[in-house]
Amino acid sequence: MKHRIITISREFGSGGRTIGRETAKQLGIPCYDSELIQKTAQESGFEESYIINADESTSGGFIGSAFSTRAFGPTAEDYLWEAQRKVILELAEKGPCVIVGRCADSILREKADCLTVFIHADLKYRADRIVKVYGERQESPEQRIREKDKRRAAYHRFYTDMKWGYAKNYQICLDSGNLGINQCVNILKILY
Amino acid sequence: MKHRIITISREFGSGGRTIGRETAKQLGIPCYDSELIQKTAQESGFEESYIINADESTSGGFIGSAFSTRAFGPTAEDYLWEAQRKVILELAEKGPCVIVGRCADSILREKADCLTVFIHADLKYRADRIVKVYGERQESPEQRIREKDKRRAAYHRFYTDMKWGYAKNYQICLDSGNLGINQCVNILKILY
Repeated sequence: MKHRIITISREFGSGGRTIGRETAKQLGIPCYDSELIQKTAQESGFEESYIINADESTSGGFIGSAFSTRAFGPTAEDYLWEAQRKVILELAEKGPCVIVGRCADSILREKADCLTVFIHADLKYRADRIVKVYGERQESPEQRIREKDKRRAAYHRFYTDMKWGYAKNYQICLDSGNLGINQCVNILKILY
Repeated sequence: MKHRIITISREFGSGGRTIGRETAKQLGIPCYDSELIQKTAQESGFEESYIINADESTSGGFIGSAFSTRAFGPTAEDYLWEAQRKVILELAEKGPCVIVGRCADSILREKADCLTVFIHADLKYRADRIVKVYGERQESPEQRIREKDKRRAAYHRFYTDMKWGYAKNYQICLDSGNLGINQCVNILKILY
């Protein structure tokens, strides 16, 4: 089966974004990630810096928003979610691409011809990798991973009602720590 | 990375056993499934028919055993689990192979060089497939699937304390309904 769009969900530090970019590069199609944030910002009127802070994976406003009763209507996070959803649907209309994160798997589920991918790896591999890629921080790499994964999973669950990391929600799940990033790219290319 | 053994966990009707057999055939290595049951029977002194009834996926004694307090010591199911575990460890020692089901993924986790695989598919695909492969029954195919999956998941959880179908427990998870059985075989061959 041929797929026009690859959506990648990933654990923090698993190399999912690198796999997405490299797969897109080798297939000669665009990969949307920070570009997507910019486009969302432009179209929704949100400041880009706000969107970065309120992103699925950061310690911004999402958790507070998740516990809001919505008694005063949708939260700023809800508007952001809706703006991102529209951008993703437009990108999917525009042509073949890879989209990393932002619940694109769920948003495009019924709308596009997608290969839905989840990339994960064990804690040790990810801890070593985030120090290499993002450098040392005051928190331990393990703490940074736990915190970021927890927020990504909560965000995904809140806005999509799908369990993050549950195999049945994806067409393919790959352990990048064990299989290696290049092998993951090879497999996605074969399935595209 | 080269793998000597492929373990396949699978949802009922997903074609996991077929994928295992075909992969083994194309790789020129054995696939253990009913052979494994026979070998277990011979070595443990259990009657083969008893083992088939008490298998991970059937409506035999497992559920009753799961709720036993073990006040009178291990249940017959516990002895069977131990016998199967020994057989799987011996098979893994003997040489490269594919092992379908029976918690081989968990049993061999620390002991062998394994590619751990989970095969799943949506309910519609599996319902159609079990009628083709196993024929009509009095129960609807959907009922048969729900019942069998529930037992497999409960068995796996009880004896391994690992969540069945959770992506992080496997190196690769594949949606056979979407990707197709042949493509799943191709990917496993590449990763072996």
